[in-house]
Amino acid sequence: MAKFMDVHHGMAGITAEQLKQAHAADLRVEAGEGVHFEHAWADPESGTVYCLSEAPSKEAVQRAHNLAGHPADEVHPVPLSV
Amino acid sequence: MAKFMDVHHGMAGITAEQLKQAHAADLRVEAGEGVHFEHAWADPESGTVYCLSEAPSKEAVQRAHNLAGHPADEVHPVPLSV
Repeated sequence: MAKFMDVHHGMAGITAEQLKQAHAADLRVEAGEGVHFEHAWADPESGTVYCLSEAPSKEAVQRAHNLAGHPADEVHPVPLSV
Repeated sequence: MAKFMDVHHGMAGITAEQLKQAHAADLRVEAGEGVHFEHAWADPESGTVYCLSEAPSKEAVQRAHNLAGHPADEVHPVPLSV
């Protein structure tokens, strides 16, 4: 398992409720891909959402987000953290 | 106080030790700007570093990173999180 940070663009105007629902959708599908979405942070003004996950691969993160209905624009492995 | 996610590009090849030192430099200067850097995650391959902070403003985050010697390329307020 490794850590990943993925980024969604084009989410301008996202509300707290929409972020909560999107994260809940991720949690419903993640087990099938062996992924766990730990946190998400959103900037409604620029329309950017960052998601931190633990996953077996970048592809697994992308598949889980696809299944949840919101493909990520970027998925970066982040093997280093402090 | 609010939460911010900032992004540094061009950090390809960053090591665990360099990330630790950079974060330590942030922690040394943050109080003067009323900022607290909570976490940082790095992708040495794409050269991207993400930092999560609590701060009074975007400008305070940028000033703290400048003082620590590594200006951020982007600073986003992230008022929503799950």
